[in-house]
Amino acid sequence: MSSAMRYLSKSVNTNILVSLKNGIFVRGILRAYDNHLNLILDNAEEIYTTPDGETKQNSIGKRVLIRGDNVIAISTPKIEME
Amino acid sequence: MSSAMRYLSKSVNTNILVSLKNGIFVRGILRAYDNHLNLILDNAEEIYTTPDGETKQNSIGKRVLIRGDNVIAISTPKIEME
Amino acid sequence: MSSAMRYLSKSVNTNILVSLKNGIFVRGILRAYDNHLNLILDNAEEIYTTPDGETKQNSIGKRVLIRGDNVIAISTPKIEME
Amino acid sequence: MSSAMRYLSKSVNTNILVSLKNGIFVRGILRAYDNHLNLILDNAEEIYTTPDGETKQNSIGKRVLIRGDNVIAISTPKIEME
Amino acid sequence: MSSAMRYLSKSVNTNILVSLKNGIFVRGILRAYDNHLNLILDNAEEIYTTPDGETKQNSIGKRVLIRGDNVIAISTPKIEME
Amino acid sequence: MSSAMRYLSKSVNTNILVSLKNGIFVRGILRAYDNHLNLILDNAEEIYTTPDGETKQNSIGKRVLIRGDNVIAISTPKIEME
Amino acid sequence: MSSAMRYLSKSVNTNILVSLKNGIFVRGILRAYDNHLNLILDNAEEIYTTPDGETKQNSIGKRVLIRGDNVIAISTPKIEME
Repeated sequence: MSSAMRYLSKSVNTNILVSLKNGIFVRGILRAYDNHLNLILDNAEEIYTTPDGETKQNSIGKRVLIRGDNVIAISTPKIEME
Repeated sequence: MSSAMRYLSKSVNTNILVSLKNGIFVRGILRAYDNHLNLILDNAEEIYTTPDGETKQNSIGKRVLIRGDNVIAISTPKIEME
Repeated sequence: MSSAMRYLSKSVNTNILVSLKNGIFVRGILRAYDNHLNLILDNAEEIYTTPDGETKQNSIGKRVLIRGDNVIAISTPKIEME
Repeated sequence: MSSAMRYLSKSVNTNILVSLKNGIFVRGILRAYDNHLNLILDNAEEIYTTPDGETKQNSIGKRVLIRGDNVIAISTPKIEME
Repeated sequence: MSSAMRYLSKSVNTNILVSLKNGIFVRGILRAYDNHLNLILDNAEEIYTTPDGETKQNSIGKRVLIRGDNVIAISTPKIEME
Repeated sequence: MSSAMRYLSKSVNTNILVSLKNGIFVRGILRAYDNHLNLILDNAEEIYTTPDGETKQNSIGKRVLIRGDNVIAISTPKIEME
Repeated sequence: MSSAMRYLSKSVNTNILVSLKNGIFVRGILRAYDNHLNLILDNAEEIYTTPDGETKQNSIGKRVLIRGDNVIAISTPKIEME
């Protein structure tokens, strides 16, 4: 695992925010990840903007696997919300 | 198999919901998978939204193989339905 | 060959339905395949929908090789037709 | 070379029809190929449809190399024409 | 690590500007990177242009991981601002 | 180097025509190539069609390197012009 | 490093012009490169065409790293300008 990837280990069992290439954001508790950025998220919600500019969120599963090649970036939502 | 991928082993023989890059969702019983997220699903149905905003589902096969590079995410539909 | 891929061996010499990333479906008798999902199909037909919503099918060759990276999913057409 | 790929060896020195991801078809005599489906075609012609729905063909070279990642499928044009 | 990649080592712990394939720029302090250009950025902000042509910036996290395949280029914002 | 690729060796030091995925054609004298179809072309010209349907050509460098993943096909322009 | 790639070594410490898949051109002094065409450019400028057809250039950094998979072609701007 590269040094860049190892930084993510501090985020295991905390809430992360994932931005995906299809324009959707997913928030959840990171349980596991690998070198491809395949992610296991618990209590995952998708966050998206309606055509009216409204932000909505939707539960998408108690446990979700995201295939790494869809990921643009991963950040800490607490920070993002400030 | 990476630690992220091994989480999926608990979902073998249960219903999963797969979101694909072409905008379609597929639901079925997971029988097998590999590191690329190639999936074998039984009793698979596609779930899609018509231009009128109606959600429809369609049987797409007793046994379906999905090529892993089409997958965005995999979740448990029971949760997703709540 | 991964366990997911080995499931496909039962479909050799039977009719399969392949959905491709360009929106076309191809039906044919599976003769051979490999780990990339390169497929050899005999008596292949493409199935597509005209702008009028009509479903058409066209013979595309006694023997056709499909490059695996075009494949979304493979299913059994008998089931799909029910 | 995978078992799927070895099927193509019977088509060396015969006419094949290649459909490409950019929507163009190329016909020519297959001289060589490899595992990526890089192809060497002799007396190659591209076949395309004009906006008026007319099918046209154009010589594109006595010897043409097609990069394999552009290929969707390869079939036998004699069959395709029946 | 290639000689091209090693040049980036001088930028660790300094501010960099990353341009992404989705048209967004991200600025932050580079903490770590690897051969795929996976990046760890601290105090990251996204910089984008509104439809009115206005440039805006948004905090996107105290620590952000960017998946390398989204990167077009990396430059030093001080220079870019001159 | 695969047998398909070795065919290209006969074209070293001759004029070739390269069609690229962005719709542009490049003509030049092939000096070197590798397995990815990275190409070194001398006296390279791009050939493109204006919105009026006019074919134009433009010198693009005494020596040009084309990254192989942009290539669709390579042919001999003398033939193509007949 | 392939023979095609080794040709680029003569361009180290000279001005090159890089065309990128997003339609932008970047000019700068090549300092380093690797097999993926990851490039280190000094005194880099982007060159682009406004919707009015005007060509503009913009300094984008004293030192810029370009990720190789964005590159279409690399040429010598002196030639390109003749």
